Amino acid sequence: MGDSGENETKGKIIICKAAVVWGPGQPFSIEEVQVHPPQKMEVRMKILYTSICHTDLSAWKGENEAQQMYPRILGHEAAGIVESVGEGVTDMKEGDHVVPIFNGECGDCAYCKSEKSNLCEKFRVNPMKAVMVNDGKTRFSTLDGQQPIYHFLNTSTFAEYTVVDSACAVKIDAEAPLRKMSLLSCGVSTGIGAAWNTANVQAGSSVAIFGLGAVGLAVAEGARLRGASRIIGIDINPDKFIKGKTVGITHFINPNDLQKEEYKAVHEIIREMTEGGVDYSFECSGNLEVLRVAFLSTHDGWGLTVILGIHPSPRMLPLHPMELFDGRRIVGSVFGDFKGKTQLPHLALECMHGFVNLDGFITNELSFTDINEAFQLLANGKALRCLLHL
Amino acid sequence: MGDSGENETKGKIIICKAAVVWGPGQPFSIEEVQVHPPQKMEVRMKILYTSICHTDLSAWKGENEAQQMYPRILGHEAAGIVESVGEGVTDMKEGDHVVPIFNGECGDCAYCKSEKSNLCEKFRVNPMKAVMVNDGKTRFSTLDGQQPIYHFLNTSTFAEYTVVDSACAVKIDAEAPLRKMSLLSCGVSTGIGAAWNTANVQAGSSVAIFGLGAVGLAVAEGARLRGASRIIGIDINPDKFIKGKTVGITHFINPNDLQKEEYKAVHEIIREMTEGGVDYSFECSGNLEVLRVAFLSTHDGWGLTVILGIHPSPRMLPLHPMELFDGRRIVGSVFGDFKGKTQLPHLALECMHGFVNLDGFITNELSFTDINEAFQLLANGKALRCLLHL
Repeated sequence: MGDSGENETKGKIIICKAAVVWGPGQPFSIEEVQVHPPQKMEVRMKILYTSICHTDLSAWKGENEAQQMYPRILGHEAAGIVESVGEGVTDMKEGDHVVPIFNGECGDCAYCKSEKSNLCEKFRVNPMKAVMVNDGKTRFSTLDGQQPIYHFLNTSTFAEYTVVDSACAVKIDAEAPLRKMSLLSCGVSTGIGAAWNTANVQAGSSVAIFGLGAVGLAVAEGARLRGASRIIGIDINPDKFIKGKTVGITHFINPNDLQKEEYKAVHEIIREMTEGGVDYSFECSGNLEVLRVAFLSTHDGWGLTVILGIHPSPRMLPLHPMELFDGRRIVGSVFGDFKGKTQLPHLALECMHGFVNLDGFITNELSFTDINEAFQLLANGKALRCLLHL
Repeated sequence: MGDSGENETKGKIIICKAAVVWGPGQPFSIEEVQVHPPQKMEVRMKILYTSICHTDLSAWKGENEAQQMYPRILGHEAAGIVESVGEGVTDMKEGDHVVPIFNGECGDCAYCKSEKSNLCEKFRVNPMKAVMVNDGKTRFSTLDGQQPIYHFLNTSTFAEYTVVDSACAVKIDAEAPLRKMSLLSCGVSTGIGAAWNTANVQAGSSVAIFGLGAVGLAVAEGARLRGASRIIGIDINPDKFIKGKTVGITHFINPNDLQKEEYKAVHEIIREMTEGGVDYSFECSGNLEVLRVAFLSTHDGWGLTVILGIHPSPRMLPLHPMELFDGRRIVGSVFGDFKGKTQLPHLALECMHGFVNLDGFITNELSFTDINEAFQLLANGKALRCLLHL
């Protein structure tokens, strides 16, 4: 039924396959579910490709108790085609190519109207949210229709069909390669945007990137495109270094290669390499000790540290207020400070024309039904992005 | 001898009065000292007015053990006249009106050449420094010439004459009222600059200022001149509110007037007053609990907190890394991010022409020899700035 034509399914419940999680860390159950029609200002999309990000991994494990809502359909990186739209949706129609975004843009709230923020009042990223904004209900239910299945991050892409708010779907050029566009939903946009929007990396500058997953490598790609002259990658997994070279990383540091007593001095090594410190550092590891090293690796007077990693620990920032008087700054970046609906169509064009190179980010491809295997690849650091074909 | 003409004293030791501190918290001893001639790129100035800032108070108490160097001449807010200049000084000459700055500007280093920093490599603020950069020696000694007397904050203004690096002396217009120019050395420049340079307060915006000493009130003056529509002052001393009105503070909150259980909710009160939080908050109290409240008082998405208070506690920033993902930012500001030699001459003109109003900041005036009384006024919160006449 999931393969039916648009006109046949419009306004009706679609029955299709989804990867449902029934409890923290439990294997994904590929089963048939009901996907209800989109309501006012919502979009139902057919997912063609989806990929897995560490945020999915964390939610799957149920690391945060408040997030433990089951059954649930995870997933937030994807690309697909509009199946039908609800009342009031005018910027998309059946057949349009779309990328879902977990950090939406309604376009009308004070945040969307501010140049300084991409945190939409209604549709900003919220890992606690599990239902639709419209009516507080779900658009998924079990095959018998008896039990609602919760949403995740405004998107829920581990399904053949999903329903998202129109604020969380970005129409992209029909010529853009949908397969790669899945990367724009999260990791790659976050990294590139952190370099372009949050840090505003300047030509000839120096950059240090802590943690070379997809986000960190996308930061490198963004910094390279801005003309950064030195891009230093720091990771304890030497496999990441080969990939890093292809996105312009010029120097590598593996803290595990240093003597134990030298480990704390990574920032000193970086300061020596860069006449006092890098202009920009990016924390993509989610580790507080690394965050401090990233901060201290920047040049005093003007260094900027951008936090991208998720820090689940309740510990506070390991920085003293007086350290901010040395002119080092630290900021967080959500979705690379991109306003998704406004800016992502242009980023898609830049990828399509090869200005931005996404070739290296998809390291593995599997069938959707192999999602459990794909999760293990990411958990074991064996994949940057594993693309699942639906 | 301190009153001798310039030509008579040039190149010679001047014997004059100074307020010397011989140990932590000990009364200032007004005694005659030797002031040696300025060396290469140094300036000897006759101090006409000096005022007292909380940094002097803290150094006088010896709160930081590493700063306990005695005998020492404190003081860093002043205005005076050049008595003579050392070799190589070309931007100042005898008779010029000058204001000393604790955060110097050499004009040649990478920091001075960067638009992003006012932290000169050689002459930035450094409360540990007690000697001249040139030769590591002092230009003060006891009357018998036997014991060096240490410098403080590149300035040491509690003396009839002092020697500073030329990077730490700003020539101002001879028509500018020298009496008020003392305020530009530190507190007022710091506050106005924090609003103009660090925060870049926009017209129509909302501002919260925590701690209404001279710095906090100068922030208000800076915000008012930028056209901020709401300026909220927070202080536990109600006497500060009367003064605050004259510099444009529109609303006041005294946390002590709230019920004990409501105290923690100052940020909630501010958020209610301002549809979600102020655009900018300024922490001028040096208290970590207040810092957190200042941070939470800003609007998510774009709020900026500027730290101006000195935080002697070893405690870390009471902020969680994930809180930075709400789009609130926090930065430190030294000397209001003013590049002193480049920008202060213009600020002096703005004060001279009445664009910036300094009238309310000098609340008391005493003779230099009454310096101990003046310190008590500041310590007891009875004075914003007490101007000492030499």
